[in-house]
Amino acid sequence: MTEGRFLSLEGGEGAGKSTQARALAEALAARGVHAVITREPGGSAGAEAIRTLLMEGEATRWSAHSEALLFAAARADHVEKVIRPAIGAGHWVICDRFIDSTRAYQGVAGGLDDAAILALHAFGSRGLLPDRTFLLALPPEVGAARAATRDGAAADRFAARGEDFHVAVTNAFDRFAAHEPARFRRVDATRPPEDVTAAILSELADWLP
Amino acid sequence: MTEGRFLSLEGGEGAGKSTQARALAEALAARGVHAVITREPGGSAGAEAIRTLLMEGEATRWSAHSEALLFAAARADHVEKVIRPAIGAGHWVICDRFIDSTRAYQGVAGGLDDAAILALHAFGSRGLLPDRTFLLALPPEVGAARAATRDGAAADRFAARGEDFHVAVTNAFDRFAAHEPARFRRVDATRPPEDVTAAILSELADWLP
Ligand SMILES: Nc1ncnc2c1ncn2[C@@H]1O[C@H](COP(=O)(O)OP(=O)(O)OP(=O)(O)O)[C@@H](O)[C@H]1O
Ligand SMILES: Nc1ncnc2c1ncn2[C@@H]1O[C@H](COP(=O)(O)OP(=O)(O)OP(=O)(O)O)[C@@H](O)[C@H]1O
Ligand SMILES: [Mg+2]
Ligand SMILES: [Mg+2]
Repeated sequence: MTEGRFLSLEGGEGAGKSTQARALAEALAARGVHAVITREPGGSAGAEAIRTLLMEGEATRWSAHSEALLFAAARADHVEKVIRPAIGAGHWVICDRFIDSTRAYQGVAGGLDDAAILALHAFGSRGLLPDRTFLLALPPEVGAARAATRDGAAADRFAARGEDFHVAVTNAFDRFAAHEPARFRRVDATRPPEDVTAAILSELADWLP
Repeated sequence: MTEGRFLSLEGGEGAGKSTQARALAEALAARGVHAVITREPGGSAGAEAIRTLLMEGEATRWSAHSEALLFAAARADHVEKVIRPAIGAGHWVICDRFIDSTRAYQGVAGGLDDAAILALHAFGSRGLLPDRTFLLALPPEVGAARAATRDGAAADRFAARGEDFHVAVTNAFDRFAAHEPARFRRVDATRPPEDVTAAILSELADWLP
């Protein structure tokens, strides 16, 4: 049995997280590694029900505190029902957004303390962190342009925020990466998708057969 | 303008909380005091949406931790959107279950620390506590018999638990009341509804015109 690994993909809207989740799973499969793709908010039946509450409605529907509690509840369910069992079975897990998105979005948008967000994560999910987190680094205006041209793109409660917000989110991700260099790998996401996938794979060479 | 007051009604299934909430609001109205009746989980649009997630489905649908986070999220919304504005406008608020139900049910059923539940309440709702809490004291088997004969009674995720659980909940409420005598008033709920209402009113004499 292979050793389970937990990877997360982070970055702003349109950075290529969902594209890279799929591409990475294919590239890993070609190397004999089975990877489970999942996403947040959501990823388990209960968490997807909570996701609906989080993504629909007015931008002001929830207070920053209610929103952070809902994210923590969804993540607790996702971790317990999907992520920990998959890792325990020796699979790799590729998660499209995880705790760092809550830290960036709710921390910035809600003005919540990073420590408070991490305390909720400690309570709900026993503080589980990815083994490695890929930050897809892209200027926010490039991501916004990509997301706008995407098929079926409908602005959700978060994407609908203004430019300053997305700059602040980008800066927050950069700070997290600088603070936790052992966990984070910052990948230049302005390049073509294949090049981004190759960069991610090269940062996994130490774990690949 | 009258001074707003926040009252909660607590107790096990079938203790008469919903009955007394209505009777108390009528009795207060007859004394010229406008009271808003509300309930938990729920009481605001967002919290009612979360309530649906909490009350439906299998008893094991949510882990104790996810459940506690969902209760805290619902309560934060309810406090912010309904309870604080009503108190601020000088109304009395009668809440059918509040934080002590989470402490009793999730504390007992989920084995969660009371301190952890109160920490979530501090985060979500700035730790708001009722000015006075009426504990409707009733042997659990009497409450269960009452609830069983109630119109349209359908066992929800909590009512469906066994006898030991309901005894543990009753004991937990008694402990809370003993620990916070300034906030709690324990009312014998085995008597006819009118007598219970009279007992509650007599415990509010200091605040009534
Ligand atoms: N490296 C790339 N170069 C150019 N376009 C890209 C690249 N990666 C993805 N795209 C395109 O940009 C759009 C957004 O990509 P994707 O949905 O993967 O981003 P995302 O980070 O998952 O966005 P969101 O945060 O909104 O879910 C898609 O139309 C995708 O095809
Ligand atoms: N003092 C009382 N004596 C006898 N029956 C009562 C009394 N109070 C309420 N009942 C009846 O008992 C049943 C349960 O009452 P009620 O719904 O008010 O309880 P509750 O505490 O709100 O229960 P739940 O926790 O399930 O919401 C109802 O049928 C109600 O009419
Ligand atoms: Mg995506
Ligand atoms: Mg009731």
